[in-house]
Amino acid sequence: MTYCTAISVGDGLCFLSDSRTNAGIDNISTYSKMHTFSNNRDRAIVILSAGNLATTQSVITEVKKAIKKESSGNLFSYSSIADAADYLGEVNCDKQGKHTGGGGAYEASYIIGGQIAGQPPVAYLVYPQGNHITTSPDTPYLQIGESKYGKPILDRIISADVPLETAALCGLVSMDSTMRSNLTVGPPIEVLLYRRDSLLLDSCYRFEEDSEYLRQLKSSWHDSLRDAFNGLPPIAWSTSWDTAQNSSSNNR
Amino acid sequence: MTYCTAISVGDGLCFLSDSRTNAGIDNISTYSKMHTFSNNRDRAIVILSAGNLATTQSVITEVKKAIKKESSGNLFSYSSIADAADYLGEVNCDKQGKHTGGGGAYEASYIIGGQIAGQPPVAYLVYPQGNHITTSPDTPYLQIGESKYGKPILDRIISADVPLETAALCGLVSMDSTMRSNLTVGPPIEVLLYRRDSLLLDSCYRFEEDSEYLRQLKSSWHDSLRDAFNGLPPIAWSTSWDTAQNSSSNNR
Repeated sequence: MTYCTAISVGDGLCFLSDSRTNAGIDNISTYSKMHTFSNNRDRAIVILSAGNLATTQSVITEVKKAIKKESSGNLFSYSSIADAADYLGEVNCDKQGKHTGGGGAYEASYIIGGQIAGQPPVAYLVYPQGNHITTSPDTPYLQIGESKYGKPILDRIISADVPLETAALCGLVSMDSTMRSNLTVGPPIEVLLYRRDSLLLDSCYRFEEDSEYLRQLKSSWHDSLRDAFNGLPPIAWSTSWDTAQNSSSNNR
Repeated sequence: MTYCTAISVGDGLCFLSDSRTNAGIDNISTYSKMHTFSNNRDRAIVILSAGNLATTQSVITEVKKAIKKESSGNLFSYSSIADAADYLGEVNCDKQGKHTGGGGAYEASYIIGGQIAGQPPVAYLVYPQGNHITTSPDTPYLQIGESKYGKPILDRIISADVPLETAALCGLVSMDSTMRSNLTVGPPIEVLLYRRDSLLLDSCYRFEEDSEYLRQLKSSWHDSLRDAFNGLPPIAWSTSWDTAQNSSSNNR
């Protein structure tokens, strides 16, 4: 499994990914799921990948090969990130289609985001079927992989006006909740902050399994949540409902 | 969809259920998913149900009918809750098997818990296949339906030694997180506190959609979480990793 998220705020984009892959629960490896593409000129693009590792590896290899060969359709030739997302979806469908059987076992999904000079920064979630969605002011983030455990905190904290660093911190908390509940999501955690109009992918950070900061964050968040819980108003019990209505009693 | 949980602590058992059912997203109804069974003598049993509504209704009807007819196998005749869970699983498999097609569309799952005089209070999760699991000191709760959003807070707060009221409050917070993220889980929320050795099912509470307490809990929890987040240590940025390693650059 995997957990990746991209958060779109006024200051730019924040990308986070875990690095654990598993084929069955007894075959666990570590692979980066964050792939960066820059032509050092007019564009900076990040791809996060989730799903079948053979599929995502062959897709990323194909994407890199097309750049190297300067093929007519490659990540550096498209005029918008949306077109690049279409292209990524096509490459993915092509690679998925090479293998049959196993239901959706070969499926993969992606987040692709970044900026092309003269356009705003954007991010898209590319589904296994090749179509995609983007963020909105109401939903300024995208998730792939094991998304549910980490969603509530994003919903509560993220809005388009939070600073990029706050988005990253919230992303790490979201990652912490996910790792706590799903063993197949794990460190190293990679974080990339893309600052609007910089066209630079130089703020990439990696938190290893033994990261003192991750440990501190985990323990601090755990304690804060317990304190928050202990400060909740005690239950104002409503009047009991009549269990007899809904009950099978055997009166004798 | 549905969210139900049963929490087993030293003081007894706490059962919570939402009441929203849906057939497609445009066909939403309200049905209680909490069913209580007491023979006013030696046992108190609660069943929570999730899954296909036609299946769960026919199963509960069958269970009630067997009690009324005093059939040889009925909820009041078994000598343990585990045997009653086996029975519930069998009735469920029988009802599910009457309809085919639609994949798992007719599947249902249950939590059955309570106490028989002379035995400790227990709870079981009955799977659509009819088998079941119970709680442990390490995992003192069971969930059916949309379980992921509400799991992290249970993991952080619940242990076998928390008071029954604290378990109920944590269950309500877990329900709140679930309702926030999944529209198909909704009020009224039913809560039943079963006190060890009471053999009474008289502490049943219902929080309606307009419950002032639910509103207050929701807002208080939201504010506390934001405060907790704002109190987290700022990110200790590790050294940047070299994006060039993992990057396709086109240096020209």
